[in-house]
Amino acid sequence: MRPSGREVGQIRPVTITRHFTAHAEGSVLVEFGDTKVICTATVEDGVPRFLKGKGQGWITAEYGMLPRATHTRNRREAANGKQGGRTMEIQRLIARSLRAAVNLDQLGDFTITVDCDVIQADGGTRTASISGASVAMADALNKLVAEGKLKANPMKGHVAAISVGIFEGTPICDLEYLEDSAADTDMNVVMLEDGRMIEVQGTAEAEPFTADELNAMLSLASKGIEDIIVIQKASLVD
Amino acid sequence: MRPSGREVGQIRPVTITRHFTAHAEGSVLVEFGDTKVICTATVEDGVPRFLKGKGQGWITAEYGMLPRATHTRNRREAANGKQGGRTMEIQRLIARSLRAAVNLDQLGDFTITVDCDVIQADGGTRTASISGASVAMADALNKLVAEGKLKANPMKGHVAAISVGIFEGTPICDLEYLEDSAADTDMNVVMLEDGRMIEVQGTAEAEPFTADELNAMLSLASKGIEDIIVIQKASLVD
Amino acid sequence: MRPSGREVGQIRPVTITRHFTAHAEGSVLVEFGDTKVICTATVEDGVPRFLKGKGQGWITAEYGMLPRATHTRNRREAANGKQGGRTMEIQRLIARSLRAAVNLDQLGDFTITVDCDVIQADGGTRTASISGASVAMADALNKLVAEGKLKANPMKGHVAAISVGIFEGTPICDLEYLEDSAADTDMNVVMLEDGRMIEVQGTAEAEPFTADELNAMLSLASKGIEDIIVIQKASLVD
Amino acid sequence: MRPSGREVGQIRPVTITRHFTAHAEGSVLVEFGDTKVICTATVEDGVPRFLKGKGQGWITAEYGMLPRATHTRNRREAANGKQGGRTMEIQRLIARSLRAAVNLDQLGDFTITVDCDVIQADGGTRTASISGASVAMADALNKLVAEGKLKANPMKGHVAAISVGIFEGTPICDLEYLEDSAADTDMNVVMLEDGRMIEVQGTAEAEPFTADELNAMLSLASKGIEDIIVIQKASLVD
Amino acid sequence: MRPSGREVGQIRPVTITRHFTAHAEGSVLVEFGDTKVICTATVEDGVPRFLKGKGQGWITAEYGMLPRATHTRNRREAANGKQGGRTMEIQRLIARSLRAAVNLDQLGDFTITVDCDVIQADGGTRTASISGASVAMADALNKLVAEGKLKANPMKGHVAAISVGIFEGTPICDLEYLEDSAADTDMNVVMLEDGRMIEVQGTAEAEPFTADELNAMLSLASKGIEDIIVIQKASLVD
Amino acid sequence: MRPSGREVGQIRPVTITRHFTAHAEGSVLVEFGDTKVICTATVEDGVPRFLKGKGQGWITAEYGMLPRATHTRNRREAANGKQGGRTMEIQRLIARSLRAAVNLDQLGDFTITVDCDVIQADGGTRTASISGASVAMADALNKLVAEGKLKANPMKGHVAAISVGIFEGTPICDLEYLEDSAADTDMNVVMLEDGRMIEVQGTAEAEPFTADELNAMLSLASKGIEDIIVIQKASLVD
Repeated sequence: MRPSGREVGQIRPVTITRHFTAHAEGSVLVEFGDTKVICTATVEDGVPRFLKGKGQGWITAEYGMLPRATHTRNRREAANGKQGGRTMEIQRLIARSLRAAVNLDQLGDFTITVDCDVIQADGGTRTASISGASVAMADALNKLVAEGKLKANPMKGHVAAISVGIFEGTPICDLEYLEDSAADTDMNVVMLEDGRMIEVQGTAEAEPFTADELNAMLSLASKGIEDIIVIQKASLVD
Repeated sequence: MRPSGREVGQIRPVTITRHFTAHAEGSVLVEFGDTKVICTATVEDGVPRFLKGKGQGWITAEYGMLPRATHTRNRREAANGKQGGRTMEIQRLIARSLRAAVNLDQLGDFTITVDCDVIQADGGTRTASISGASVAMADALNKLVAEGKLKANPMKGHVAAISVGIFEGTPICDLEYLEDSAADTDMNVVMLEDGRMIEVQGTAEAEPFTADELNAMLSLASKGIEDIIVIQKASLVD
Repeated sequence: MRPSGREVGQIRPVTITRHFTAHAEGSVLVEFGDTKVICTATVEDGVPRFLKGKGQGWITAEYGMLPRATHTRNRREAANGKQGGRTMEIQRLIARSLRAAVNLDQLGDFTITVDCDVIQADGGTRTASISGASVAMADALNKLVAEGKLKANPMKGHVAAISVGIFEGTPICDLEYLEDSAADTDMNVVMLEDGRMIEVQGTAEAEPFTADELNAMLSLASKGIEDIIVIQKASLVD
Repeated sequence: MRPSGREVGQIRPVTITRHFTAHAEGSVLVEFGDTKVICTATVEDGVPRFLKGKGQGWITAEYGMLPRATHTRNRREAANGKQGGRTMEIQRLIARSLRAAVNLDQLGDFTITVDCDVIQADGGTRTASISGASVAMADALNKLVAEGKLKANPMKGHVAAISVGIFEGTPICDLEYLEDSAADTDMNVVMLEDGRMIEVQGTAEAEPFTADELNAMLSLASKGIEDIIVIQKASLVD
Repeated sequence: MRPSGREVGQIRPVTITRHFTAHAEGSVLVEFGDTKVICTATVEDGVPRFLKGKGQGWITAEYGMLPRATHTRNRREAANGKQGGRTMEIQRLIARSLRAAVNLDQLGDFTITVDCDVIQADGGTRTASISGASVAMADALNKLVAEGKLKANPMKGHVAAISVGIFEGTPICDLEYLEDSAADTDMNVVMLEDGRMIEVQGTAEAEPFTADELNAMLSLASKGIEDIIVIQKASLVD
Repeated sequence: MRPSGREVGQIRPVTITRHFTAHAEGSVLVEFGDTKVICTATVEDGVPRFLKGKGQGWITAEYGMLPRATHTRNRREAANGKQGGRTMEIQRLIARSLRAAVNLDQLGDFTITVDCDVIQADGGTRTASISGASVAMADALNKLVAEGKLKANPMKGHVAAISVGIFEGTPICDLEYLEDSAADTDMNVVMLEDGRMIEVQGTAEAEPFTADELNAMLSLASKGIEDIIVIQKASLVD
C-alpha cells in the first residue's frame, strides 16, 4: 500500500491553469497534487550566437524554487551567488525535453525561454515542470501563429513527464515526497504524445534495479503520461 | 485624471490570501491590483552570530521577482550570480520595516525570515511586499504563541506601506506601473498601525519636490495605509 | 546636550579641498568633521547601451570605504567578491542625487562616473559624499565647457545633503558616529540649491516617528544644507 | 557501418593503468580508445556535516577537463569563476554511481573524493570516468583494509559504465566523438558487476526513441559493461 | 637623461605622514613623488586557523587602488566581483616582505593586517606601499609594546623597497610612470635595514638583461633603499 | 648533503615528451623528477581587444593543478569559484616569460594560449611549466610556419627556468619538495637560450639573503638552465 493511498499506477490530480500571470506569451500554473509550479514561456527575437545564420530557432529553460517551497527553508540561490548542481541538472533536462518536441528549423528566428518556478514542492517538481512547460510553450507558439509570425505551430506534439520508482519492492507511478524519499529507485520519463521517449533517467538510490524492473517502471510511466496528455489537451480547449 | 481612472487618494483593490502555500509558518498571497507577491515567513531557532547572547530575536527579509513577472523578461538573478542593487535595496527596506514593528527583545531566540517573491508586477511591489509580509509574520508569531514558544505576540501593531507620487503635478496614491513610469516623484511610506512612520523614501525622478508636495504625499499615504490596515486586520479573522 | 557639544542645528566644520588628486577631471577631498571622503569625477565618451541614440548623457556613482576607515576593520569588498547591500544602496542614492541636479539632455554624449571613497568615517559618509561629489562634478563639467565640448554647464544648481535624526527625543542635524549609533531615527535629506528636495530617506531605528518630528527634521536639514551650499560655492572661487 | 569501423557492439580498446600518479590513495589512468582520464581517489577522515553521527561514510566526485582536451580550446572553468552545467551534471552522476556500489554504512568515518580529470577527449568521458574511478576507489578502499582502518572492502562489486546510442537507425555501443555527434539518441548506462543497473540516462538528441530501441541499447550496454568489468578485474591483479 | 630630470640613482622626494587616519593602530600616508598610498596596520586578536597552537603571530596585507588613481579610470575591483591578478601578486609581495622583517614567534597571538590603498599613482606603487607599510606596522607593534601586550617590538629592522630598471640602456632608480612605461626591464627590490635582500623581482619587459645589468640595478636599489630607511627612521621620531 | 642526494648544482632527470595529447597545436609532458606537467599550446586567430590593429600577436598562459597532484588534496579552483593568488602569480609569470622569448611583432594576428596543468607535484612546478611550455610553443609556431601562416618562427630562442635556493646555508639547484619546504630562500630564474635573464624572483622565506648569495644562486641557475636547454633542443629532433 502506498503512503498516498493511491493505486500503483495512479497519478495525482493534475490541474493546468492557463493565463496564470499576465505578461508572458504563455503562462501556466501546473499542479500535480501538492506540487505547484508556475511555468512561463517568453518569446524573444533572435537566437544565441552559436545558432546565428543556421536557419533555426532555439528553446531554453530555467528552473527555480522559492526558498520556502519545501518543508524547511532552502537558501535563495540568488543570494548564494550561484545555481546549485541540482538546479542546473533539472533546467538542462527541461530544456532538452522541450527542444526534442519542436521542429526547431520551423521556429524561425525566435528564442523561447521557459521559466519553471516551484512555489510548493511535494515531489516530482521536474516532471510537473516539463508537463506544464509544454502547455505554456504551446500557448506561446500559437500566439506566434496567430500574429502571423509563424506559418504553423512547429511542435511535434505534446510532451509530458512523470516520475516512477520502486517503493518497497513495487513499481509505482508519480511519487509524492513521502514516497520519493523512501524509494529504492527513482526514474523520470519524458515522452512525446506519440508514445516515443525523449528522456529516461533512472537512478538507483539504494538498491540497483534489473531490466525487468526497468520495464515495469516504463510501462507505468507510459500510462501515466497518457493521462497527463489528455489533461494537457483539455486545458488548451478554451 | 489618472491613467487608472482612480481618485487621487484611491488605492487599488487589495486582497490578502493567507495559507497560500503549505509549508511556511506564515504564507500570504498579497495582491494590490495586478501586483501579486507571495510572502512567506519562516521561523528558525537561533539568531545570527552578531546577536548571540544579547537576549533578542531577529527578523530578516529577502526579495525576488520571477523573471517574467514583468512586461519583458528580466535575467534570473540566480543565473546572473548575484542580486542586483535594486533587489538589495528593497529587501533591506522590507527587513527594516518589519523589525521596526516588533519588540525584538520579546522574540526569544528565534529568527524569522520573510521571503517576498513577486509573481506579477504592476508597480508598488515593495509596498505590497511589506503589507503582505506583515500578515505572514503575524501568522508565524501567533503560531509561536499557540505552540507555547512565546508568551505573547511581540508585534507593536500591523505595519503597512504604500507608494505615493506626483503625477502631472498632482499627488496621487498607490501608483500602478503606467503611473509610476511617468511620475515626477516617487515616494514609499511605511507606517505602523498607530500612524507613526517607520520609513519615508522620496525620490525626485525628474523634478525636485517642495515641502508642501511632500506633506501632500504624506497625507495621501497616511490615508492609504489606514485602508490597508483595515484589510490586514480583516484577513486575520478566520 | 549633544555628545558633540554642538547646537541641535549646528553642522560640523565642513571643508572642501579641490584638485586633491591629479588625474581626475574633478577631484575633491570633503571633510565633515572627522568624516573624510575622496570624490573624483571621471568623464568618458559615450553613454551606456540603454541610452544610445536618446540624445542625453549619463551620470553614475560608486561608493567604497577603505577597510580601516572605521573603528574596527571591515573586510575589503573586492576580496569578498561582492559589494554589500549597504554599499549598493548608498551608491545608488549618490547617483540618483547627482542625476537629479543635472539636465541630462544638455550633457551631450558623455558619461560622468563619480567615485566616493571614504578614507575616514565618523557618521554621515553618504551625505558628505553627495556634497563633495557635487563639487567634483561641477569641476568636471566646467572643464568640458572650457574645452568647448559643452556649450554650458548643465547643472541645475549645487546639490548637497545632510543627515538629521532624533536623539534622546530631540531633532538634531549632522549626526556624528556617537550620535548616529544612539539615535531613534535617522534621516538623509538631499536638496537642490533652490531648496527643493531630491531625496528624503527617513528610517525609524528604534521608535517610529510622527509627522511633526519629520517636519522638524526637514527644517533642520534645510538650514544645514543652506550652510553647506555656501561652502560649496566658496570652494569653487579659486 | 560505423565511422570507427567497429562492430555495433564492439567497445574500444580499454586500458587501465594503476598507480598513475604518486600521492593519491588510488590513482588510475583510464583509456577508452583516444579518451583518456586521470581518476584519483582521496581518503580523508570525517564525513560532511549532514552525515555526522549517522554511522556511515561518504563518497563524492568532481569532474574536470583540461582546456585543450578537446578539438578546440574550452575556457578554463576556474578562470570562468564557476563550473558549467555539464560539469555539474557529470560529477553528480559519477558520485551517485560510486555511492550505489558501496555499502556506505561499512565505510566508517571516512570520505572518499574521486577526481576525474579528462586529459584527452574523444567521446564517452563520463563513462570512462566511472569505469576508471571504480578501480581507483577499489585501490583506496583496499588500502584502508590493509592499514587496518576497515575490516573489509565495502564495495558491492565493480561498477562500470558505457555509452550506447542510435546511429543512422542502428543501436551501437561505446560511441566515439564522430559517432556521438551524429547520433539520434545518446544513452549512458551504469551497471554493477552483477548486471543490475545503477543509472540509465537516455536522451533523444534528434528523434525520440521507442521501447524496443531502448531495450536494444540496454542489451548492447550490458554486454559492453561485462567486457569492461573483465578489464577492471584484470587490472587489479598485480 | 631621464624624463624626470633626476640623476640615475636619485629617488623622488619621499614623505611619510604618520597618524594620517584616526582609527588604525598604525596609519601612514607615504608619498614617492606623485605616488601616494595610505597604509594602515590593524591589530586583531588571534591567528589564522593554519597557525593555531604553533606559538606565532601572523602578518598579512591587502592592496587596492582607487578607480581614478590612474590616468584613466580602472573598473572598481569590488564591482568586478574579484581582485585582479596584478592586485593579488602585489599584495602577496607586500605580505611576504613584511613577514620577513618580523620575528613571528615573538608576535604573540596577534594578526596584523596592513592595507595599502593607492590614492594617486605615478609608478612604484608596490614599493611605496612596502616602505610605508613598514612604518605603519612599526607604529602598531610599538603600540602593542606600550600597552604591555608584547614585551618588545619583534621587528628585525625596517624594511623598504624601491623599483629599478633599465631605461634606454641605462640602469636607473625609482622609476616614475613615464620612465616605467618605456623601460626595458623593471625590477623591484625589498631590503631589510641591514642591507640583506628580502625580495628581488626582475622582469624583462622587452629585452632580456645580463648579470652585469642585474648587479648594476641591485647597486642602485641598495643605495635608494638606504635613503628611504633614513626617512623611515626620521618619521618615527616624533 | 641534500635530501635528494644530488650535487648542489645537479638538476633532476628532465624528460620532455612531445605530442602527448592529440588535439593541441603543441602538447608536451614535461617531467622534472617527480614533478609532471602537461603543457599544451593552442593557436587561435585574432588578438585581444587591447592589441587590435597594433600589428602584433599575443601569448598568454594559464596554470592549474589537479586537486590530488599534491600530498594532500587541494580544493578544485573551479569549485571554489576562483583562482587563488598563487595560481594567478604563476600563470602571469609563465605568460611574461614566454612573451619575452618571442618577437610578438612577427607573430601575425594570432594568439597562443599555453595551458600548464600539473598532474603530479614535487617542487618546481612553475619552472617545469615554463621549460615545457617553451617546447609546446615551439611546436605550435613551427606548425604555423609549416602551414604557411607565418614566414618564420618568431622565437628569439628557447626559454627555460629553474628554481634555486639556500638550503642549510648552501645554495642548491632545482629543489624538490622536501628541499623547498626547508629552504631559507627560494628563487626562480628564467633565461633565454643566450644566457640573458627574463625573470628573477627571489624570496627570503626565513632569513634574508646577501648579494653574494644571490650571485651564487644565479650561477647555479645559469648552469641548470643550460642543461635544460640541451634537453629542450634534443626533444625537438624527431
